[in-house]
Order: sequence, then C-alpha cells, then structure tokens
Amino acid sequence: MSCLVLEVLKPSVACALQLRATATGDSRRALAGFLYRHRGWDTQKAPVRKYSANMERRAGGGIIFRQLFESISSTYTYLLGDPESREAVLIDPVLETVDRDIKLIEELELQLKVAVNTHCHADHITGTGLMKKKLYGTKSAISEHSGATADILLSEGDSITFGKYCLNVRETPGHTDGCVTLVAGDQSMAFTGDALLIRGCGRTDFQQGCSKKLYHSIHTKIFTLPGHCLIYPAHDYKGQTVSTVDEEKKFNPRLTKTLEEFVEIMSNLNLPKPQKIGRRLSTNML
Amino acid sequence: MSCLVLEVLKPSVACALQLRATATGDSRRALAGFLYRHRGWDTQKAPVRKYSANMERRAGGGIIFRQLFESISSTYTYLLGDPESREAVLIDPVLETVDRDIKLIEELELQLKVAVNTHCHADHITGTGLMKKKLYGTKSAISEHSGATADILLSEGDSITFGKYCLNVRETPGHTDGCVTLVAGDQSMAFTGDALLIRGCGRTDFQQGCSKKLYHSIHTKIFTLPGHCLIYPAHDYKGQTVSTVDEEKKFNPRLTKTLEEFVEIMSNLNLPKPQKIGRRLSTNML
Repeated sequence: MSCLVLEVLKPSVACALQLRATATGDSRRALAGFLYRHRGWDTQKAPVRKYSANMERRAGGGIIFRQLFESISSTYTYLLGDPESREAVLIDPVLETVDRDIKLIEELELQLKVAVNTHCHADHITGTGLMKKKLYGTKSAISEHSGATADILLSEGDSITFGKYCLNVRETPGHTDGCVTLVAGDQSMAFTGDALLIRGCGRTDFQQGCSKKLYHSIHTKIFTLPGHCLIYPAHDYKGQTVSTVDEEKKFNPRLTKTLEEFVEIMSNLNLPKPQKIGRRLSTNML
Repeated sequence: MSCLVLEVLKPSVACALQLRATATGDSRRALAGFLYRHRGWDTQKAPVRKYSANMERRAGGGIIFRQLFESISSTYTYLLGDPESREAVLIDPVLETVDRDIKLIEELELQLKVAVNTHCHADHITGTGLMKKKLYGTKSAISEHSGATADILLSEGDSITFGKYCLNVRETPGHTDGCVTLVAGDQSMAFTGDALLIRGCGRTDFQQGCSKKLYHSIHTKIFTLPGHCLIYPAHDYKGQTVSTVDEEKKFNPRLTKTLEEFVEIMSNLNLPKPQKIGRRLSTNML
C-alpha cells in the first residue's frame, strides 16, 4: 500500500490531499479529484459542465439524493449527485440491484465516480465489482481497516468529493474493524452503515465485532454530530427510512444504556449467523 | 352531507374556507383549522406552541417528513409535521403498522390532526380507523368521490393544513373514481397515491378503473406541477422511494405513450386480482 500527500489544486480553499491507493492501483491522478480533506459542503468549486437535463435540481441547486432498497437483505443503497457537475457517489450497492441502480444513474445523467462500501458486508454481496465493470471510470472505496481490496482505501478524515459536495470519513469500528460513517460536508446527513441503525445497531458477534468499540464509536463519532443530522443506515427491517442524531440519542433502546448494560445486551442477542456468510465475505473482500 | 362556506380568520391571506363534513360529523369547528383553500406553504401562520423537543428541526425550520414502508403490501405511509405547532398529517396508514407509526408520532411529540387516504385501497386495510381510536382527536379524510365514510370528505381545491404547512387536494381519478393527489403548498412534493407510481401507474381494471381518465388525470393534474416536484407514490415494488415530475414525464414507460397506446397497454396487463379484495374494500369503505 502506498501513501501520497499532495498539494490541493486550490491552496486557498483546503489544505492537503491525502491519497491512499492500493499497490496495484494505477490511477492515482484520477483519484486525486475525489479524495481530500475539507471542511464543508461548498468549499470546493466543482468543474462546471453543461448538461441538457435539468432534472433533480431543487431550489438552490441542492444535492441529488436517492435512497434505494434491496428487500432480500433489507439493505439501503444511497445515490448522491451534484446537479451541476453531475458527479455522483453510490453508497453500499447490492449485487442484485446493480442494474436498477445503473438505469437510474444513466437516466439522471450522472457520472458515477465512486462506489463506496461502509464496511465489508456479511449479509449480501456488494454490487461494487459489477458496477465498476458496467460503468467505466467508477472507483471502488472501502475502509483500509476492512482488509478488503479496493481502488480507494479510506481512513479517518478522508473525504470523497463529487462536484461541490463531499462525504467525510469517520471511522466507527465495532460491528467490524473496517466500519466507517460517511458524513455530508454540512453535517446534514450521516450514512452510518451497520454501526448505528434506526433504534438499533449492528451486531457485534462475528467479523471482529466488539460491543465496547461500537458503543465508543457511536458516542464519539455519531452522537457528536448536530442533533438535526439525518441518520441513514445500511439496513432497516421495520420500514423506517431515516432518523436523526437527537432521536437516536433519546430513543435508541441500546445506545441510551450505560456501556456495561450495552455490552450485556449485545452479548445476549443470540442471533443466527447470516446464511452463506463465508462465501459473501470472501467475495466482498475482493 | 353538508357543505359550509366560512370566512377565513385571516382575510388578508386566503379567500374562503370550504368545509365538508359527513352528516353525522359533529365537530365542524374542530375541522375548520385543517380544511381551507390557500396558495402556498407559508400563507397561514400556525398557532405557536412551546415544545421542549428540538428534534427534526432542519435548517430554516423545515417540515418534518418521514417516509415509512409496509412490506407485505409494499405500501408507503407518509408522516408530515410542522416543527413549531407540532401538528401532523399521516398519509395512507396501514393497519399492520399502526403501532409503529403511533410510536414515532409520540416520540416526535407530534399531534396527529388528520389521517388521510389517497383513495379506497384494495390491497391492504387502512390504518385510519385504528389510528383514530388510539390517537384521540385525529380525523380521517378521503375523497368524497370514494363513496367511503370519513370525518372529512375531500374534493378538488380543498387543503389539509397542519401548522404553517398544507397539502392541496387535486382529484386524479382513473385508478379509482376517488383518487386524489396531495400537493405540498410550495409544490415541492406530491403524494400521488395509486395514480402515478415511479415508472408506472395504478391498474385500471377494477374499482371504477378507467385508463382514459387516469391518463388525463396524470397529464393535467400531476405533469403540470414543477419539474423538480418530488413524486411520492403509495406503493413501490422495486425499492425505489421517490421520483420527480420531470423524470416521470421523460421515463415513465406508460405515460410517455399516446393516449391510445396507454389504453392498449393498460387493457393488456392481465394482473391477478388482489387477494381478499372484497373484505378489504368493505372494511376500507368504513
């Protein structure tokens, strides 16, 4: 693995670009546009391209945002795009719904820059590999602590940018060692993967799971976000689509407990192991 | 059925209040706050109450909005609330998920004013009746053309208000005679029921269904909304959560056809009849 620190193109705006690529990665320059630290939604000016479609432009030219659901594994996939540059990011794509997602990306005339996994999933096969094959130029991304292979290996403080928007990486281990939460630059939205779910959290009984780590991650990295920050998890099993930091701090039946009580709850869930976990993990690691 | 026209409390703002209540309805005064014509999101000042919870307040004090899913009938229920007055409306509640929805309403400290059905459903039993029993003061609403019984019978141009927000009623028959689309006062969102679905539309082969009427309804009442207006349907079967007017005008495989082609498509769908349709309709009519 190589590590490279570059000056950002706009020195007046942000500080430095920290680029991590796998040893086999041959497109560091291409990645440079997506991975850098910054402080807010609008601190980077996107390359402005002309598009005929005016779809999805909200008042004020707000972000394009789509929540998509895969019903077998109850997984949420999120599409985020910049209406001006048309650059987009897809979070947690699922193999079975890749064609649906590609159709939408093409209809919205978006250019998928990065397909990012919040962690190495055990309950479904990621759609990232197929997405890369079908959409030329798309890069895969995952936490470097996941141990998985990807074009971009993320760690604390990295950002994934698309046009004038970005997602900032916060490491939130506990469900797995390689779990990250992706936070919108303006902290209006957080994609919490399997760390924090709506009125729940990810299990901690396999894949390097550790309930103490998870409790600490959620309290220090997610519950410190603004109260109105919307929580978008990787899964929901009750038809809920979104929550907020304030709500989870107040109503999450596990995270409102003390650390000791939380550890006790998590060690007594007695959940069945996900089916085909071995095959899924070995596929998702690649 | 009685019809009553009243002066609005703020004559400088809107014009007249048109209140329709069932002959047995005994709470016309209580309804007066919810049902009137107006022109925009912020034309009515809501009664301001103090609440301790600051949850769900977005930048600018935006609307509280929750999309909820019932997986057996693939139905979307929508909760909309005013963060200041805490008044709320629930669109298309489902019997099986009433307890989940009530829990959320209570956690968010909302006061449910109206539970409204976009039409008389054939594929699930509405949660409106149970919701009314469990949440004192909630009124039920449905189109007067549905023939169903409710506290509030809606027709073209009516509005359902909650705090400083409102939903305007557009009659969009075709799937049934009593289908309405509920449009946010600022036309940023439209709840299209079973008239317009994402890349699809409601069937027209039972319950007074008429494909010509449906085509006309969608083209004159929904496709005339601003292109960026978000489309929130009553159902989706592919994990999609939202669309826009522009997208459906461009990509809906049925509605982009001519009227003749649309009628031909709709008459050849050969869909199975929903199970238990007789029992569901007779229950939902009450």
